[in-house]
Amino acid sequence: MKFAEKLLTTKSIYQGRIINLEEQTVELPNGQTAQREIVRHHGAVALLCLTAAKDKIILVRQWRQPINKTTLEIPAGKIEAAEEPLVTARRELNEETRLAAKQLEQIAVFYTSPGFADEKMYLYVAHDLRPVKNQLPQDDDEFLELVELTMEETDQAIAAGEICDSKTLMAIWYWKLLKTQTKG
Amino acid sequence: MKFAEKLLTTKSIYQGRIINLEEQTVELPNGQTAQREIVRHHGAVALLCLTAAKDKIILVRQWRQPINKTTLEIPAGKIEAAEEPLVTARRELNEETRLAAKQLEQIAVFYTSPGFADEKMYLYVAHDLRPVKNQLPQDDDEFLELVELTMEETDQAIAAGEICDSKTLMAIWYWKLLKTQTKG
Repeated sequence: MKFAEKLLTTKSIYQGRIINLEEQTVELPNGQTAQREIVRHHGAVALLCLTAAKDKIILVRQWRQPINKTTLEIPAGKIEAAEEPLVTARRELNEETRLAAKQLEQIAVFYTSPGFADEKMYLYVAHDLRPVKNQLPQDDDEFLELVELTMEETDQAIAAGEICDSKTLMAIWYWKLLKTQTKG
Repeated sequence: MKFAEKLLTTKSIYQGRIINLEEQTVELPNGQTAQREIVRHHGAVALLCLTAAKDKIILVRQWRQPINKTTLEIPAGKIEAAEEPLVTARRELNEETRLAAKQLEQIAVFYTSPGFADEKMYLYVAHDLRPVKNQLPQDDDEFLELVELTMEETDQAIAAGEICDSKTLMAIWYWKLLKTQTKG
């Protein structure tokens, strides 16, 4: 831990519905002090969902106010307090796609932006999807449209900037890796 | 733009060195209003750097205060005001690895967490790396260690949780895709 920074003080700046913001003063390895701006987030899940023929990926079209545009992203959602990521994943899969998976395989766990935020994301592949029997209520401030794209169509959507976030690119690259392994 | 949210009010909560925070009130497509918590960030660059034999990836070991641990990440850094991403990339490559690239090839542009932040990241592959002639000064609150890992060693570092952020996983998966293409 030779690079570890020592926490001196924490000041809460903001407590929101989705994120909290803190300012920390830390002591650096050389003895000097520095300020750190830290966004706290409960974490999130995301799901790579392929159609039964495995030739299309299921995406969600939605408005993203922080970037002021509509995006195509893999199904995803925030982890509620004390919720297991796998439970969140099954819930979001139901809410956003009306599908249930026989098995959810965790393929990656990662921080989305560890320089300023602690958001941790759990990425799953959903296996053996089928329509849900009981549809969970959707968030009342979310407006979604489901879209199925072939791999070629995802290339076009990436070039057009409609697919434009890290978790969705990761899911598509993972899908490409799966395809090369199946061929080999 | 049928899902577009209409901005009603913006309230500045915090203006920091790295991020700003805003609270927005928006009108939803159904006419209701909702609150949005938005982190503003200047954007960042990240670089996939392979050794000359292309058998190892160059990573940076550093402390990340938001997640309270040491990580192994690809070289990366924040875009300064009015800086071109390609200029940032060359600067960060020099500062963090003391290398210069004959060519930087952009392989992806993405938002790291579009649900609450506008941070946009430009990911490059660095081609034909060689030691720099003029070393730029390093940030005085950054303490770094360079590490070179084989693909197998990255698998171990991922399993151990030391490689744990989206951009670095993306770079490694892209490297794997490159390898399968070279073989094919």
